[in-house]
Amino acid sequence: MIEPRVLKGFRDYLPQTMIPKKEIINKLENVFEKYGFVPIDTPALEYTEILLGKGGGETDKQIYRFKDHGERDIALRYDLTVPLARFVSEHYNELIFPFKRFHIAPVWRGENTQKGRYREFYQCDFDILGSDSVNADLEILLVIKSGFDSINCGDYVININNRKILNLILQKIEVNDKFSDVLRIIDKIYKIGYEKVVEELIAIGLDREKTDNLLDFLNLKSNVKNYGITGNEIFEYINKLKNNLGSDIKPISDLEYIFNTFKRMGFLNYFALNPAITRGLDYYTGIVFESFITDRIEFGSVCSGGRYDNLTGLYSKNVVSGVGASFGLDRLLALMEDKKILKTAQTKTDVLIFNMDDSLNGISFYQNLASYLRTNGINSEIVYDKQKIGNQFKFAEKKGITYVIIAGEDEIKTDKYNLKNIKSGLEEKLLTKEEIIKIIKGIK
Amino acid sequence: MIEPRVLKGFRDYLPQTMIPKKEIINKLENVFEKYGFVPIDTPALEYTEILLGKGGGETDKQIYRFKDHGERDIALRYDLTVPLARFVSEHYNELIFPFKRFHIAPVWRGENTQKGRYREFYQCDFDILGSDSVNADLEILLVIKSGFDSINCGDYVININNRKILNLILQKIEVNDKFSDVLRIIDKIYKIGYEKVVEELIAIGLDREKTDNLLDFLNLKSNVKNYGITGNEIFEYINKLKNNLGSDIKPISDLEYIFNTFKRMGFLNYFALNPAITRGLDYYTGIVFESFITDRIEFGSVCSGGRYDNLTGLYSKNVVSGVGASFGLDRLLALMEDKKILKTAQTKTDVLIFNMDDSLNGISFYQNLASYLRTNGINSEIVYDKQKIGNQFKFAEKKGITYVIIAGEDEIKTDKYNLKNIKSGLEEKLLTKEEIIKIIKGIK
Repeated sequence: MIEPRVLKGFRDYLPQTMIPKKEIINKLENVFEKYGFVPIDTPALEYTEILLGKGGGETDKQIYRFKDHGERDIALRYDLTVPLARFVSEHYNELIFPFKRFHIAPVWRGENTQKGRYREFYQCDFDILGSDSVNADLEILLVIKSGFDSINCGDYVININNRKILNLILQKIEVNDKFSDVLRIIDKIYKIGYEKVVEELIAIGLDREKTDNLLDFLNLKSNVKNYGITGNEIFEYINKLKNNLGSDIKPISDLEYIFNTFKRMGFLNYFALNPAITRGLDYYTGIVFESFITDRIEFGSVCSGGRYDNLTGLYSKNVVSGVGASFGLDRLLALMEDKKILKTAQTKTDVLIFNMDDSLNGISFYQNLASYLRTNGINSEIVYDKQKIGNQFKFAEKKGITYVIIAGEDEIKTDKYNLKNIKSGLEEKLLTKEEIIKIIKGIK
Repeated sequence: MIEPRVLKGFRDYLPQTMIPKKEIINKLENVFEKYGFVPIDTPALEYTEILLGKGGGETDKQIYRFKDHGERDIALRYDLTVPLARFVSEHYNELIFPFKRFHIAPVWRGENTQKGRYREFYQCDFDILGSDSVNADLEILLVIKSGFDSINCGDYVININNRKILNLILQKIEVNDKFSDVLRIIDKIYKIGYEKVVEELIAIGLDREKTDNLLDFLNLKSNVKNYGITGNEIFEYINKLKNNLGSDIKPISDLEYIFNTFKRMGFLNYFALNPAITRGLDYYTGIVFESFITDRIEFGSVCSGGRYDNLTGLYSKNVVSGVGASFGLDRLLALMEDKKILKTAQTKTDVLIFNMDDSLNGISFYQNLASYLRTNGINSEIVYDKQKIGNQFKFAEKKGITYVIIAGEDEIKTDKYNLKNIKSGLEEKLLTKEEIIKIIKGIK
């Protein structure tokens, strides 16, 4: 006998976790479609040279890579961004730009599994390609907001920054050749704290004045929190930036425009301007964002992204810029579980029809009833084998089904039904099919 | 520069094919849920020993197999049945039986790609585990019917047989040791025709009388068609079986029960009894079925399955029998494309809001409008950049969006909108938001 087990770092989804996972995915897909995003799919396996590109990073070590039957060097995708770059390069002439796509699919990384990380996990990406408009940036941020609203996992704050403004600040303060070191240190402020950041900045050669200047410019104080400037202070800070860096700098006026739009839409409370956000060093070139659930900051950002200049540079001469983000599905699920608001369920069945008469007559009757209920939007099951009524109740309870229909020979003759809500204990007798539908749908 | 290309036998899904694919998947999932089936998921990668089990078949050559970073012998799943067997064995005590699951997911096989087959394709399986009841068989068949009804791809016929009855017939005719040879030949009758089957049966040593007897028993005539006996002839054939094999044989009375139920439900026309169906030799042990779209018989069966005795034998001492089937998603998509009934679409957007005023005032107004429409179930996009109105019309046409909303400074002031149906050319002016919703939803 072979021991039934999954690989380390992998997992099964049982119905009670798969049902809520699918519901969250459905909600997000629905949001994407509301904004006009379209789905695509790409193969799980690609040529390794395509996935690794120039290579040399952590990815090389983590990627699942092997030779196929034709001795091709192939690998499993480790994210959905590189396949998107390949996809857009390959199908450039078939796509309509601005191209707004979403892609929700598993990726694989053979990384260390110690920290509750998995080697197979879902990414949930959405991007707008081929537009430099600030309105594309704005839209991605509105999608994030609508995504959180639809998932309904508590208060959230979406932090916004712009890498170009950060660069201007660093230029202004004359940190010169230490750009990437400074960004790396600033990015850690929520992990290591204000004092340690000061220490590290001085360690790499910034003097005390420059350090103070920089942290003041970034509005970072000793009581730093994971989200930055909120409410009308945002506009004060933007004015400070204008006064110090210039009044007609596009990245600054874009930010002002975005926050003003939020204000007019009544959404200002959901967003923050956070000058400390950098989101890594290589990829993003304009606006960047991270999002937190306010009573679970410790779970980290649950939706991040930003604007990038040239997605397709490795594969095509067509320059395609874009802006996009990604919901951390697994992190959101873990967070909702932690908050005990994840609706785990054994089933989505609304009603169980008891088997009180297993004759041809009885079963045909139950099947016709079930068929009628299903057509009217009610998920219905029939008990296969006639058995003690107590066992049938137990089965319904174990599955967490709310309603049961009990119809024996008498009821079958009269086409009337007994409906019992086994959660409330309420039983109603001799109902018509139409009455049952109204009760179950709660429109009695 | 790296050439952007997918591996041979793999493919991208562009929006125009991904949108209809997702819609079919959604419809099938909806059917499964209506019947009380629940979703599960298993990892794409498993230990090779689990996937290959005893091994030795075609699978061994086709499977994508390699060593991971920990030198484990691992492979990509090549179907969803073996992972299900492992899953049920591993989680036996966590599941509620009868366990009704569906699983729609990609599988990988490095097989010959000549015949329009792909090395990555979706399977769409649904099974009832842990019940021997004929009502479970019946339910799987009803799910298949509801699946076809929901996809709406034309008239279909679901062919049913029972392996046990075939065995009884072969015993009765005394083909004795040639069981598997005879089954293999019978199974080919739709490919090679009646005459060739006679020839081959005689070639393996059946005499002319036995051959005639057998083909008569199976109701196979020279004008054999891909679906068997239909309508009331089904019951005549069942009586013939009873008269010849015995009147109290369960597989026969089960078939009779199933067809009688269909008759009472008014569904008899969707099903056929086809005594020639065997569905391979190893796996199925009871009822078996295949389904065809009647005006595309040449596409082969688009939903097949049957009953099996012991799913979990390789991994567990718990014997779990079951019955299940699988929709051929890719085959259905190809068939619908061939019939020109596949609704390919570039987008699911209902309305495009033109950008006639890109001031903060204008954009906030458009965004508020879009937000309102989305909340009311209307998928809405906004043009990012102000541009010539002709270009905005062209963009809407290219994407195939039906409605556009045109609101310039005057309309913005009065909160009224011009709505144009660019397919019919009809334009209505100075509408309220509520009127727009009614028109787009077609409930004017």
